Amino acid sequence: MCESNAYIEDNGNEILYLEAVDILRPEGGKIYLKNFWGEEKVFKGEIKEISFLKHRIVLRIKSEIMIDKQNDGSHNG
Amino acid sequence: MCESNAYIEDNGNEILYLEAVDILRPEGGKIYLKNFWGEEKVFKGEIKEISFLKHRIVLRIKSEIMIDKQNDGSHNG
Repeated sequence: MCESNAYIEDNGNEILYLEAVDILRPEGGKIYLKNFWGEEKVFKGEIKEISFLKHRIVLRIKSEIMIDKQNDGSHNG
Repeated sequence: MCESNAYIEDNGNEILYLEAVDILRPEGGKIYLKNFWGEEKVFKGEIKEISFLKHRIVLRIKSEIMIDKQNDGSHNG
């Protein structure tokens, strides 16, 4: 599988931000990420670089935006 | 290998823009792409969506920028 890990660049270090990213979608100044397990993140910031061969996404994040998690209203049991 | 194809969205159709993208790097209002074989493209525009699992990059391109190709000056034979 070809999902990539997203890292935050911070003073030359890279910190893991989200594992196994499937979807990356810029949305009007924000960037939306969703990973293989359905975990979602939204942040203000930018993409520094993506290497598809290295499975690496490097991000610069100004601020993270909390998601109002309502995408699964089902309660089984 | 996990390189992805880049497509241009055009009136609901998707046109192949660059095969086997390795590197994607926003650079001050432009986006730089380089593929597995070293082919490079630069355009003004934006990323619509990337799906790493589907190996798909969808772009909106305003204008393409010609690259002054000087990255391989060697002549073997």
